[in-house]
Parts: sequence; structure tokens; C-alpha cells
Amino acid sequence: MRISELSERSGVAVATIKYYLREGLLHPGLTLAPNRADYDDEHVRRLRLIRALIEVGGLSIASVVQTLAAVDDASVSIHDAFGVAQDALSPATPTPAPELGSTPTGSNSPTPCTDAQLEVDRWLRRRRWKVRPDAAARTELAETLAALQQFGWGHSASLFDGLADYALEQAGLEVGYLDPQQDRSSLMEQAIIGTVAFEQAYGAIRRLALEHQSYQRFGRRRSVSA
Amino acid sequence: MRISELSERSGVAVATIKYYLREGLLHPGLTLAPNRADYDDEHVRRLRLIRALIEVGGLSIASVVQTLAAVDDASVSIHDAFGVAQDALSPATPTPAPELGSTPTGSNSPTPCTDAQLEVDRWLRRRRWKVRPDAAARTELAETLAALQQFGWGHSASLFDGLADYALEQAGLEVGYLDPQQDRSSLMEQAIIGTVAFEQAYGAIRRLALEHQSYQRFGRRRSVSA
Repeated sequence: MRISELSERSGVAVATIKYYLREGLLHPGLTLAPNRADYDDEHVRRLRLIRALIEVGGLSIASVVQTLAAVDDASVSIHDAFGVAQDALSPATPTPAPELGSTPTGSNSPTPCTDAQLEVDRWLRRRRWKVRPDAAARTELAETLAALQQFGWGHSASLFDGLADYALEQAGLEVGYLDPQQDRSSLMEQAIIGTVAFEQAYGAIRRLALEHQSYQRFGRRRSVSA
Repeated sequence: MRISELSERSGVAVATIKYYLREGLLHPGLTLAPNRADYDDEHVRRLRLIRALIEVGGLSIASVVQTLAAVDDASVSIHDAFGVAQDALSPATPTPAPELGSTPTGSNSPTPCTDAQLEVDRWLRRRRWKVRPDAAARTELAETLAALQQFGWGHSASLFDGLADYALEQAGLEVGYLDPQQDRSSLMEQAIIGTVAFEQAYGAIRRLALEHQSYQRFGRRRSVSA
């Protein structure tokens, strides 16, 4: 099919498709003539995956490139490709005032994350979870622990025990749902979309549940439609 | 204190503080002379909150402004201010190829979210959760449902029932932890940081749990240190 049909079938603008081709997110079509290429169902499928990673997962183009490279490289194990997708979901680490690109001044300023990082690492060892020493989620978790400590939410990683029990059970269900007999591409796609979408789903559901509970506790006299 | 001391105590660069002052995130100091202002502990405290919202929550400057306006406006109820913070965490809705600002072509292209949105709304009614009809998390959840359906993860919002049972319990604990007797600012700060940080924490823990479960299922023969 022509690029215009690919655009129509995928719902992705032609200009955006061309951008993905230039950035290497989408493999080139079959060249029929200069400035004329033929695209097929694999392109539609790949565009669907790219859009889901960007729209649902909020991934940057660079993270999508990394994730797709792991999906496409048959020498990367399922487990390792999964790790790449998980890292892609972690916000880029230490964000020094991103809007200005400046770094905090003062070498005396507190470094809240060092203690929290050690505590998160100890906590993971205690739980005997097998995770890479450099998994991006470790740092992310340490940052949230430091913030919770600062604002009076308690002072140890044991805050996370309830979340971890539940997350382990849920992750077991998700990983168990994947059928390793299906072809590698389908398996990877499903694993990655599950990683991305269930995380967003839980975040959204959590906020809805907080709103409901806050209504029960603080808002009963106000009118809110169900 | 001078702005240089405020920078040192908060760990936020002077240029960044000036930017926050211009954008109205931080209230002005007391003017002592032209180009010389005096800052106090309230400024340190506010900077701590701003940094946590940006670094831990990943909020945009615009979302921080909105959230702080609700925190500071004593006429906004705790419940409503909570809602503002929850909306701030939802990614801005329909992202039409953000890297180009272009919109998808083709009015015939599928609109996956309409059916999913109706289903999410029905599902919330069935659960009798009191949430605003325009809560941002509704749309976000519909988008994730559409993505999960597309990639073979099942076809109804009942996928979310387990997550919702757990989220409701967890949200009840969080809301119950807040002490409504403390002053409004402290209560709001704690509520908002809890909303932001526990969401990030769950996301990070979930990814660590997925990595562990994926190791158990797909990676046992590879060497991964604990």
C-alpha cells in the first residue's frame, strides 16, 4: 500500500510516519520507484505499537527506539527485552530543574537520595527479588521514598511492603498470562504493552479510588455526580 | 535570608528560583531595597514542595501552578484540591503525535476510545465510585483499556477489577492517614505528595516485581545479581 493508505489504516499522519521512518522506528517500505514505496501489514502493526508506547506509556522517541531495538533483536532474551521496556518507563534520572537545564548550587545541599537508595537496596535484598543492580526503577523508588520521608509519610521502606505484596501477585498474573509458544514478536508486543498499559491503568484507577475515598472522608456534603 | 542562602538551603539554583518567582509558583520575598528581597522558611518549604511535584511527580510547570493555586485558596475544599492534584497527574489527553504537533489524517480512522470510554464509565457506575464526570483519569483509563484490547489482553473493563479492589483499600489507608486537625497547608502538602509519590512508588515497585517474575519465568539460566 502507498503511504497515504498506511496513514489512513493506522490513523497516523503521513508527516508523522515519515518522521518515524527517518528516526528508524519504522522499517522502510519496499522501494518501487524513487519517492514511491510499498508498505504492508507489518507497518500497520508496528505503527500501532509505536503509538501505544507514546500515547499510553508516555515514552519519548528515544525510549521507543531503544525498546523496539530490543524487540527486534532475536539475540536479546525475552527477559532482557522486558527489562529494557521497564527502564523505558522510568523517568530519566536526576532531573536538575529541566526547564532551565541548570544544576542546583551549593555542595552543602542535602543529597536526600543516598540514604534512601541504600534503604531501597536493602529492602529489595530482604525481599529476595531478582532485579538488576542498575534497574532504573531502583533510583525512582529511592526518590519517592525520600519525598515521602520529607513530607511526614513515615521513615522506612517498609511503607512499601503492602504495595510490594500486591505488585508481586499482579506481576505473576501478568507474566503468567503470556504464552511463550506464540511467535517472538507477538509475545514481545504483548509483554511490552502489558507493562506499559497496566501501569497507567493502575495509576488512573488509584486516582479514581483516591477521589472516591476523599469524597467519603472530606467531601460528603458537596454534590458530586457518580 | 538572601536569595543565595535560599538557594543553598533548598538546593535549588538561583536562576531556577528566579524563574519560579516570575512564573508565580513562589510568592515574592519582602522587598528590602530595589533588587534585594528577604526570604523566609515558607519559601524553603514551598521550594521543597515544587521540586517534589516536578521531580517525583513529573508535573509540568503549568500543572504545578494549578495545583499550588488550589492549595493556597482557602475557599477550595480539601476534597476539591485533591481532585486538582489528581488531574495534574494525568497525562494531557489525546496526544496527536506530540513530536510534530500534527493530527492524524483520515476521518475514517478508528476512534478506539469511544467504546472504551463508555465501558469505563459503566464500570465506574457499577462500582458506585463517586468521581467527577470530567475526572482526567476516566479518559486515561479508557485509553489504556483500548490499548489492552488491541494487544490481546482481554476485552472488558473487568480486567481492572482486581486492581480496583486493591486501589480502593490502599486509597482508604492513605486518606485515613491524613490528620484533618493539622493546619490546612500541611494537610494539603501531605495529601498532594502522597498522591504523587505513592503513584510513582507503585509504578516502580510494579516494574521491579515484573522483572523478578519475568526472571522466574523466562530468565532462570541467566546470571542476575540480587
